[in-house]
Amino acid sequence: MATVYLVGAGPGDPELMTRKAWRLLGEAQVVLHDALMDVDGMHAAAPHAIWVNVGKRCEGTSVDQAFICRSLVGYAKRGLRVVRLKGGDPTVFGRLSEELEACRTAGLNVEVVPGVTSACAAAADLQASLTLRGVSRSVAFVTPRVGRKEHALDNEWLQVSLAAQTVVLYMAGKQAGRIAQELIAGGKSVTTPVCVVENASSIGARFRMSLSELARDGL
Amino acid sequence: MATVYLVGAGPGDPELMTRKAWRLLGEAQVVLHDALMDVDGMHAAAPHAIWVNVGKRCEGTSVDQAFICRSLVGYAKRGLRVVRLKGGDPTVFGRLSEELEACRTAGLNVEVVPGVTSACAAAADLQASLTLRGVSRSVAFVTPRVGRKEHALDNEWLQVSLAAQTVVLYMAGKQAGRIAQELIAGGKSVTTPVCVVENASSIGARFRMSLSELARDGL
Repeated sequence: MATVYLVGAGPGDPELMTRKAWRLLGEAQVVLHDALMDVDGMHAAAPHAIWVNVGKRCEGTSVDQAFICRSLVGYAKRGLRVVRLKGGDPTVFGRLSEELEACRTAGLNVEVVPGVTSACAAAADLQASLTLRGVSRSVAFVTPRVGRKEHALDNEWLQVSLAAQTVVLYMAGKQAGRIAQELIAGGKSVTTPVCVVENASSIGARFRMSLSELARDGL
Repeated sequence: MATVYLVGAGPGDPELMTRKAWRLLGEAQVVLHDALMDVDGMHAAAPHAIWVNVGKRCEGTSVDQAFICRSLVGYAKRGLRVVRLKGGDPTVFGRLSEELEACRTAGLNVEVVPGVTSACAAAADLQASLTLRGVSRSVAFVTPRVGRKEHALDNEWLQVSLAAQTVVLYMAGKQAGRIAQELIAGGKSVTTPVCVVENASSIGARFRMSLSELARDGL
């Protein structure tokens, strides 16, 4: 039976892909990929495969998740060797379960290959540890973004962000000012240090500021 | 000026190292490594380098952190190209800051290279997402282990574990039963599903149970 590979591409720099991801790309006939940072640099791993961009972006054209699942299954059922290349790590804010479920329902084997998640790449760029002996024994990855089919009312993201000693907010750029305001209203110290990283592992903004500065000025 | 590379080795499977880690190993003259899962498999990247095991283990011989820092600086100061190969990702429970600080104090350049952290590898093994649209918009990495120089009294790990929707407990095997009891006493539902993964990405135990079963039986 055909196997579909759901593979983490890492944060953007093609050198931060795992060796396994690179090998699987080399064996792939079809690559369904997210709107990744450096697709050209990854192309070298599979120059003869068909590369299909199914990336979703905040703005502009967006590919429906159901379409992605159908494509995945469709190519695999035709006997093609499919790699689904997902930004970062597929198990962290990666919509993995929908694609897993679609493959399983279609009777396909699946293998999940982990990748470097953006939080770790951002911390490496900043040369800052996400945990710190005696100071931080926990790090939470949170997204305050509310999907179209989710309830906007819940504020679990806030509860977790207040409880964890280190917090990484994914996909938070657009709402950064409001997020900082809610954290302060929830009791987080205004002097809490904040780092902002755009395009971890690649070229982009790197800021350091306090939570009160972020609340006041936004990004 | 010499550069010291603080590099994540990933969860254990040498194929889950990044391409960059592999390249840097190939250019290294000295590799100071943790007690990693498959050092033999990683050797292939740098067969002619000096490999020094500075790994710390719960039991048995343990290398002092100060010794590791001194070695790192000592080799680099002698003009040797040094890679410090750390399990998982160096910014997650990796004691990164001590080694960063030692290198900076010695006037050495440092580059941090992220890796696949064990939580992501464990989730990939289980084919389970750490976050789930509509169910979990946060995942916390926590360690309830208390270091020798830390206060045993603080229970932040418990607060974070109760607040986050998905929790990954690192280095928790030995205390698993007690941890489950404390989570239940803190209000976590006894039916909360628990997965136990030993040696993510490699051969080891994989269990699924409820929190109450773990509290009752331990591992």
